[in-house]
Amino acid sequence: MKDLTRGKVFLIGAGPGDPDLLTVKALRALQAADVVVYDRLVSPEIMALVPVHTKRIDVGKMPKRHKVPQDRINDILVKLAFQGQRVVRLKGGDPLIFGRGSEEAEELRRAGVAYEYVPGITSAQGAAASTGVPLTHRGLATGVRYVTGHRAKDASLDLDWASLASEDTTLVIYMGAMNIGDIATELMRNGMPTTLPVMAVASVTTPREKRLISTLERVEEDFAKTPLAAPVLFFVGHVVSLCETAALPAEVVAYA
Amino acid sequence: MKDLTRGKVFLIGAGPGDPDLLTVKALRALQAADVVVYDRLVSPEIMALVPVHTKRIDVGKMPKRHKVPQDRINDILVKLAFQGQRVVRLKGGDPLIFGRGSEEAEELRRAGVAYEYVPGITSAQGAAASTGVPLTHRGLATGVRYVTGHRAKDASLDLDWASLASEDTTLVIYMGAMNIGDIATELMRNGMPTTLPVMAVASVTTPREKRLISTLERVEEDFAKTPLAAPVLFFVGHVVSLCETAALPAEVVAYA
Repeated sequence: MKDLTRGKVFLIGAGPGDPDLLTVKALRALQAADVVVYDRLVSPEIMALVPVHTKRIDVGKMPKRHKVPQDRINDILVKLAFQGQRVVRLKGGDPLIFGRGSEEAEELRRAGVAYEYVPGITSAQGAAASTGVPLTHRGLATGVRYVTGHRAKDASLDLDWASLASEDTTLVIYMGAMNIGDIATELMRNGMPTTLPVMAVASVTTPREKRLISTLERVEEDFAKTPLAAPVLFFVGHVVSLCETAALPAEVVAYA
Repeated sequence: MKDLTRGKVFLIGAGPGDPDLLTVKALRALQAADVVVYDRLVSPEIMALVPVHTKRIDVGKMPKRHKVPQDRINDILVKLAFQGQRVVRLKGGDPLIFGRGSEEAEELRRAGVAYEYVPGITSAQGAAASTGVPLTHRGLATGVRYVTGHRAKDASLDLDWASLASEDTTLVIYMGAMNIGDIATELMRNGMPTTLPVMAVASVTTPREKRLISTLERVEEDFAKTPLAAPVLFFVGHVVSLCETAALPAEVVAYA
């Protein structure tokens, strides 16, 4: 990993959206990069911090709107590093929470390319700070759990519902917008109260942040009535009652 | 909340220890503060960033080594804000993950004091980045869960073991050093494999970082033989096998 004749890849978490929520280390690496390889989940506000002369490679979409396949991203990173470049691989949130950072690292290691992780504020933390809904709170949540609500086409949601239906744990669902109705139904079927509060938050910590407060029983209907633009995060748990705006049902509030 | 004649409290996450892992927003607030009220979990490297003229109040210990009670901390914050000061309440990790930030916010709200949360990289993320052990990874962990392994004196561990014993979720235990033997026993009793990898990491992302790789079956003994200085974080799950140094049992490696 110490071959200084080659470049290096920094697998960096861009955080939830607000550029002020980048870490100092991430900002410094971004400003010193030769090339930035980025995803669609990185906010335009953060991309605006990349110096104008820095090369950018968007792997979030291809001309025909297909994403660049993971194998191809790996190849791009290895090739740039072999050219001796200082590569920033920029991902929304944290590279090691639903970010596939460790998959890219495996390929880099295999190719003998030096790399380093830089963590980022994950969306759940950004949403907690902006909405006032804590991830843990004495008497309301003794722990927190992050899961993904995404499923491959035609596949069923591969979640352990009995384990997830734990009222004293805050459940945060990433990528759940398509399946929130099914998720809520399964949680209720496994014993979670129908009135358990649910919060949906979109475009966390950006000027486009929107939120919606609901319950397990009503979230599918409320969310259908007030669809939020992706990416959307769902909080399920008693902590949602601490949202400063929770008194107003189905409220949509901008990030200040 | 908009009374500008009064001060304001910033409930700030200091991150896991490395000052470069502060967010840009946290660093800026720290440098503009009139007074910093801090915990013992904030690293000396981060406190070194506080300007020399800034007042510091250590609420992590009292002269006789008792912690300042939470009520007293709340009173200090309210009083300083009423004096018109710009107060930074600095906590290790993230204020809304085992940080009691929302408890302090409730008191501030009750007193009519303006406040704002600034999230921080939580120790689990810092440890993931420094050790290379991801919190999620396709095929190894579909989600991640943070719990606390601390218990009040004479109380039993108030954890839902059946729900926690989920092999495809990375389990991160904060404040578990005193009870890791009991925790491992309960997890095995609830069906987790005895050979499931466990990693202990201490003083995450500081020059004092140390780690230990073990298994559920052996962690109590290994940890007793190689005690790590607090704070210690435990990772339980298959992702631990991705630790770059996992091949070496009970290895202790410094943070580079």
